[in-house]
Amino acid sequence: MSNYVYGRNSFFEALDNKRIIKAYVLNDKEIKGRGIPYEIVDRRTLDRMSSSGNHQGYLAEVKEYRLSRVEDMMKEKNGLIVVLDGLEDVHNLGAIIRTCECIGADGVIYKSHHSVKVNDTVAKIASGALEYVKVAEVNNLVNTLKMLKEHGYWVVGSDGSAEKQYTDIDYDMNTVLIIGSEGKGMSRLVKEECDFIVKLPMKGHVTSLNASVAAGILLYNIERSRN
Amino acid sequence: MSNYVYGRNSFFEALDNKRIIKAYVLNDKEIKGRGIPYEIVDRRTLDRMSSSGNHQGYLAEVKEYRLSRVEDMMKEKNGLIVVLDGLEDVHNLGAIIRTCECIGADGVIYKSHHSVKVNDTVAKIASGALEYVKVAEVNNLVNTLKMLKEHGYWVVGSDGSAEKQYTDIDYDMNTVLIIGSEGKGMSRLVKEECDFIVKLPMKGHVTSLNASVAAGILLYNIERSRN
Repeated sequence: MSNYVYGRNSFFEALDNKRIIKAYVLNDKEIKGRGIPYEIVDRRTLDRMSSSGNHQGYLAEVKEYRLSRVEDMMKEKNGLIVVLDGLEDVHNLGAIIRTCECIGADGVIYKSHHSVKVNDTVAKIASGALEYVKVAEVNNLVNTLKMLKEHGYWVVGSDGSAEKQYTDIDYDMNTVLIIGSEGKGMSRLVKEECDFIVKLPMKGHVTSLNASVAAGILLYNIERSRN
Repeated sequence: MSNYVYGRNSFFEALDNKRIIKAYVLNDKEIKGRGIPYEIVDRRTLDRMSSSGNHQGYLAEVKEYRLSRVEDMMKEKNGLIVVLDGLEDVHNLGAIIRTCECIGADGVIYKSHHSVKVNDTVAKIASGALEYVKVAEVNNLVNTLKMLKEHGYWVVGSDGSAEKQYTDIDYDMNTVLIIGSEGKGMSRLVKEECDFIVKLPMKGHVTSLNASVAAGILLYNIERSRN
């Protein structure tokens, strides 16, 4: 089974990472001599192959996304792993992977069932970051959190009812950051594994931020707390 | 001309804000006696009326979105206005409006041409925040920035090539925060109006964050700098 990526950024990231099996392009100006098989096609063919996505003239059949093992994300010191608890929106997953890459997080973990997964749309939204960020699918988030805690990780979740502000914690520790689902936040069992629960200031009527925005604020605060 | 909103959150926000002209619902359990005209319809009708959107059983014809004037967003002290320079993605606009509501920003300004505008999708993504955040469309961003500067505002933009970190500035001033477009960042003319240009740490290969994530980090940092 193979996957397709499209759009300039995703295409050239895949090219740079030698993931392209075959390219489909409007012209070969930028890919000639790059050592990949390609076919010049018309715009309608690209529209069809990308299901009318914003391909920008570039589409490629690529090797399947490599998934990583949680063990390969773990570090001795100042590790940073993001755990997604039931996220449902591809835009959020893509944006969170992008933020993780920008901040140098060690990986992203999500449940293999009932949550959004990496795919071509996520790759496009992540603007190439999926090539660099380790992603792991696990069957049971609670067991994964228990394992990480045994290996010296501290689990931080966010919830509007928390007493501590997100800036109250010293993140100079191996940290797992939980991002809850768009509608419901963290699930009860995952919340019970948290060593710290923090909140973000909310001054208006709306009670929560978009999930990828909240993740960005929390991750950049961790980066800031460590530097 | 009238607009439609759909989805639970947007529907009840519109209801609370007395914007509903007529409601279309699967059942009237939650809206009976709320003083609005309604019609009970079947799922297929809602699917059609929402263009197969995620209506969750609730759709309403609502009064047109009120746009505000820039003058009505201005404050004497510690004002905070977000200016979007050519944003193109509805998800980003919705998420930014939501963040602005959560942080208590005074308003969002964008160009009336060549950029994304408030609509039903944006309202849904903003999770009700559009009811509370002032939004203004202007013909010319540069003129608007000049006017705001004359009234004591300082303009802050972000750009990867900046020397200052986003945390290096004291935001205890009337602040305009510029958010550039997804692909190209700030336009040259808007950049020339900036009093400060700041950057966010980028430790990976990808050179920028998602626009709404960057906006969230910058806005929450302004909030933090003031408290």
